[in-house]
Amino acid sequence: MSVTAARVAPAPGHLMRREMAEQPQRVAAAFAGVVAKADGLGHLVGAARHILLLGRGSSRSASTYAVEAFRSLAATPAATISPAHLAWSISTDLHGALVVAVSQSGESTEILAAARAARSRGADLVVVTNSPDSALAQLVVDEHRVLFRAGQELAVPATKSFTTSLACLLGIAASTRPELLAKAATAVPELMARVLDDESTRIDVSEATDFVCAGEGFAQAVGEEGAIKLRETLSLPVASFETSEFLHGSINSVRRGTAVLLSSSDPVGEHLSDQAAVGAAHRGARTVTVSSAHRSRADHHVRIPAVPPHWAPFLGVLPLQRAAHDAALVRGLDPDTPAGLTKVTRIDEAGG
Amino acid sequence: MSVTAARVAPAPGHLMRREMAEQPQRVAAAFAGVVAKADGLGHLVGAARHILLLGRGSSRSASTYAVEAFRSLAATPAATISPAHLAWSISTDLHGALVVAVSQSGESTEILAAARAARSRGADLVVVTNSPDSALAQLVVDEHRVLFRAGQELAVPATKSFTTSLACLLGIAASTRPELLAKAATAVPELMARVLDDESTRIDVSEATDFVCAGEGFAQAVGEEGAIKLRETLSLPVASFETSEFLHGSINSVRRGTAVLLSSSDPVGEHLSDQAAVGAAHRGARTVTVSSAHRSRADHHVRIPAVPPHWAPFLGVLPLQRAAHDAALVRGLDPDTPAGLTKVTRIDEAGG
Repeated sequence: MSVTAARVAPAPGHLMRREMAEQPQRVAAAFAGVVAKADGLGHLVGAARHILLLGRGSSRSASTYAVEAFRSLAATPAATISPAHLAWSISTDLHGALVVAVSQSGESTEILAAARAARSRGADLVVVTNSPDSALAQLVVDEHRVLFRAGQELAVPATKSFTTSLACLLGIAASTRPELLAKAATAVPELMARVLDDESTRIDVSEATDFVCAGEGFAQAVGEEGAIKLRETLSLPVASFETSEFLHGSINSVRRGTAVLLSSSDPVGEHLSDQAAVGAAHRGARTVTVSSAHRSRADHHVRIPAVPPHWAPFLGVLPLQRAAHDAALVRGLDPDTPAGLTKVTRIDEAGG
Repeated sequence: MSVTAARVAPAPGHLMRREMAEQPQRVAAAFAGVVAKADGLGHLVGAARHILLLGRGSSRSASTYAVEAFRSLAATPAATISPAHLAWSISTDLHGALVVAVSQSGESTEILAAARAARSRGADLVVVTNSPDSALAQLVVDEHRVLFRAGQELAVPATKSFTTSLACLLGIAASTRPELLAKAATAVPELMARVLDDESTRIDVSEATDFVCAGEGFAQAVGEEGAIKLRETLSLPVASFETSEFLHGSINSVRRGTAVLLSSSDPVGEHLSDQAAVGAAHRGARTVTVSSAHRSRADHHVRIPAVPPHWAPFLGVLPLQRAAHDAALVRGLDPDTPAGLTKVTRIDEAGG
């Protein structure tokens, strides 16, 4: 390679690194955007009998977070639902439901179809998307549209679009609780910057032959998102579990060479992570915990700042993003452009 | 080995085989039991603002089925929730909720704690369990107790206790629709017997080095349960996905040596399975579809009888149970007693 070529050829992972580093400022912008709409959103959430979350990939992980947020912060029943299933298979009446559709691109066929179907069956609709010009954004009036404000995301593994979508969803779930929302909007970006700057949050799982991610409560979303990052950057099958479900049998499937990454957001989650770490280590696996606990029974513990459970995923996902990036580099892969993946996934509309 | 020893030593998998074969009669008994309680259960379901399902392992897969059943057949919002999380982490008020706790043994610490917590916070409670004498069964009056009627289950991989719990949950979800429930109670056991007797439903995945299971809608539960069976009998990590979520990126993680098992319960699910089969085969994986479709784009198609979507999991799970059993035997493992697994899982109560 000539010196000139070396100068202009971007290093593998440069996009993902840049986008990871942008997260604090982008999350701050996302919070500001949703805070400005909190009044109107609060009315919708308050009126909802229940809430259905539509999302795929990283937006699906974010939806898992949102289920917890709606349950815990708004005392409103919430669940994720398959967009394809809602759009094309079932014809449930949705009067009284608030449907929240989450999509980075805002162009996913199934999310669009599900959002339209939901509204035609009587649901209120809020869209959460990065692109104000997308088809999804155009489905609703401005008051029902919450923007990631992540800027363009070029690396295939979503990082800043994931954490900004968390901010949007927290904003919707806490829209009737201005003090709680203001606190998160102020504190979370700074805490994220602190974790990103902290070299001690680095996780080395480059030696592992397979991976399992788990998390409980708010941290379940971190486990799901961590598994997606590892699948994307390493092209390996990675299962994710609720930690207590993992303990219930599936822990038996780990072995020497498995890296088990356990995230938690509260003392019960930490306790479950510790049990899972001990059990997995007993079977030869390498174990890593990510939490604010002072101590851990895992081989390696990444300590994040102690925060309310609903803030923890903003911090806990950062070491997993970096672990997926680093493991790809060690294997000679470019995390920015995993083989066979593109930024927008399209699923054909179902035939009869 | 002496001739005498050979005569008395049971063949590997004999318990699992016997219990799989018992399923039609046991499911018929479960239906009869829940039909007898339909009036009282119907009042509870009708009064519920939303329904929360508590289950772990195979009872968790059954809970995934129940979420669909409550949504589709009772038009009631439903979601699974981590028992540990409900019991020990969050303090949501649950007035207006119906909590359905599913547990084969009825002795799981976290399910018991969650069921008690749910009731103390105002929820109605229904328990679904195999054991009328269990601590869980004793929590409620007879009208709120639905029994698997599976008899004793000795093989560690749950088969008859899974399908009988499906019958109980369908019975609760359809408790206000006697005609629909009567139809299922009559037809499903016979159809199960037909599938069990049909040698063409045999799946050979013994050569695979790793596995992925997926399903959509009602069949999502089949994917989850199939993954648990394979994890249990082969001690391998096996991920399960909603089929449309699998298509959204995770399909990239399959490779030569992966067996991808795709279940569906309606034409949209079949369409998604076909897309997933084509994409996975393109990456070198071996693909199997299980559905009532006449044709499939997978390497191997297991055709089950055409039935309403909510019946499909009773039939679709049978080939996966047998596949897990057969793959273990080929590998010289005994599916009845997987290494390191026991029938009742206990999770320590969380400390502070």
